[in-house]
Amino acid sequence: NGDVSYANNSLVQRKVILMTKPITEEAISDLYCSLLPETLCIADLGCSSGANTFLVVSELVKVVEKERKKHKLQSPEFYFRFNDLPGNDFNVIFQSLGEFEQDLRNQTGEELGPCFFSGVPGSFYTRLFPSKSLHFVHSSYSLMWLSQVPNLIEKNKGNIYMSSTSPPSVIKAYYKQYGKDFTNFLKYRSEELMKGGKMVLTFLGRENEDPSSKECCYIWELLSMALNELVVEGLIEEEKLDAFNIPQYTPSPAEVKYIVEKENSFTINRLEATRIHWNASNDHINGGYNVSRCMRAVAEPLLVSQFGPKLMDLVFQKYEKIV
Amino acid sequence: NGDVSYANNSLVQRKVILMTKPITEEAISDLYCSLLPETLCIADLGCSSGANTFLVVSELVKVVEKERKKHKLQSPEFYFRFNDLPGNDFNVIFQSLGEFEQDLRNQTGEELGPCFFSGVPGSFYTRLFPSKSLHFVHSSYSLMWLSQVPNLIEKNKGNIYMSSTSPPSVIKAYYKQYGKDFTNFLKYRSEELMKGGKMVLTFLGRENEDPSSKECCYIWELLSMALNELVVEGLIEEEKLDAFNIPQYTPSPAEVKYIVEKENSFTINRLEATRIHWNASNDHINGGYNVSRCMRAVAEPLLVSQFGPKLMDLVFQKYEKIV
Repeated sequence: NGDVSYANNSLVQRKVILMTKPITEEAISDLYCSLLPETLCIADLGCSSGANTFLVVSELVKVVEKERKKHKLQSPEFYFRFNDLPGNDFNVIFQSLGEFEQDLRNQTGEELGPCFFSGVPGSFYTRLFPSKSLHFVHSSYSLMWLSQVPNLIEKNKGNIYMSSTSPPSVIKAYYKQYGKDFTNFLKYRSEELMKGGKMVLTFLGRENEDPSSKECCYIWELLSMALNELVVEGLIEEEKLDAFNIPQYTPSPAEVKYIVEKENSFTINRLEATRIHWNASNDHINGGYNVSRCMRAVAEPLLVSQFGPKLMDLVFQKYEKIV
Repeated sequence: NGDVSYANNSLVQRKVILMTKPITEEAISDLYCSLLPETLCIADLGCSSGANTFLVVSELVKVVEKERKKHKLQSPEFYFRFNDLPGNDFNVIFQSLGEFEQDLRNQTGEELGPCFFSGVPGSFYTRLFPSKSLHFVHSSYSLMWLSQVPNLIEKNKGNIYMSSTSPPSVIKAYYKQYGKDFTNFLKYRSEELMKGGKMVLTFLGRENEDPSSKECCYIWELLSMALNELVVEGLIEEEKLDAFNIPQYTPSPAEVKYIVEKENSFTINRLEATRIHWNASNDHINGGYNVSRCMRAVAEPLLVSQFGPKLMDLVFQKYEKIV
């Protein structure tokens, strides 16, 4: 069911945050020590509404507290801004904040400065914050999502994502959309960040330079196999499947570097690719089950909007078997 | 039912906002013209989650747009922060923002600067925003609510609010709580406002210097009559009613002036008392119905937490008859 799959996806997200912890720590620590702001303004973009939303905050606070003690400084004011799409459940975040802050204060001690929190609804492919109002931007596991499905001039027949059988124009359209979106992201963030500000962005990517390589596309190809089975069984109309494409792009390090340099607002301090196992629970006996649960959390909202909610159990049963 | 009573209360709130419109306009216009900020930071405290939340925003934007055109200036960035308790439905606000902003832009024209919105959960009797981060604070119809029920050393027998039959210690405890809360409110806002910042605060008050005068207490006395009837009928335990008090205080202009001057962070430009009719729909035939609906929206959450949800229809049927 939904809860299990979201919990599973949440575990992957947690893994990602913990994996990038040393990089995030280095970035916030450098930033704090070079600017020493009275109020440290931090935005988490694509914050979601689970335990991971707070995990990032407490990591950042602990690093800054360590640094300011080392420098015998007073604790700054912390100002956290949680961003996600307007459909995100901000109420859940807001109702958990009191308990979270109390836990944090218990862990860090009484000297911790005041912490302020706000929710900011909207797409990070638009302006979200006033000019020069942020020191630090964090985004984990969100930037591989495009602002929209690319405009395709040819049908991506039988596929729901880029694949080795996709027409070249489809691959091109995906990259074009990604380039446009990521460029906008960089431009808007550069307007919102103060001088000396930093970002740590973590997202799904690929090592291979071929955007239709199995590395990033296979997991979607298997899902399109499951959906094609339902077309054969007459449960999904072929036209509906042909018109459905996943608005995601997992760039290579070279593509990221190219776009950042071309956009020209930021310099890259570190650019790293790390492999992550989707099988979050380390349960090697039933990997298909775990991958399916994970994908369900990610893909179900998209599938439901195109095919309705009724077929979802069947889709993911088939998907699990195929995986 | 709940929807009708909330709609009715919302009409009263709208009346209050429109009534204070000239004062709000004067304040924001003076503020804008004297500071000419690139980003105008405005907080609405106790924003609730209905149409009135946006009514204030559009009034403020229109005034500033008028002024900046008069001075042949570019439109500033607008940064609105919506505050209410963590239990407020921020999701509803966030999901309406897109449409609201589009409407606003249609009304004001293309030159309107970027508008940013955020939600800030928490009690306005605590710090909510970073230091010196606000230009303008607006609060309508919220500041008569205390942070808690006053600590009473004597029982307020048979009453649920201050009344002519309350012991003097009860009246004193209510005023003490109000003084403490309003003083904290002023202190915290003075830390959050920038130099030259302004506030427009509208709240229920009284003209009479006696805090237990009928003017402010009668409406609660009638509700305690309804509850006492239920005690007589054995539906509510007497101890439960004795332990229940409404956390509200409606100050006189002199009390407000005294506390503001004693706290000493703010100077008062205007302090005005205006009468308002609760009978929002101007339906003089069934005033009891309307007042009862209005009071239900206000009092039901408090009553439910003490007496449970089951008796609410009965309480407000009795109340309507008594009114």
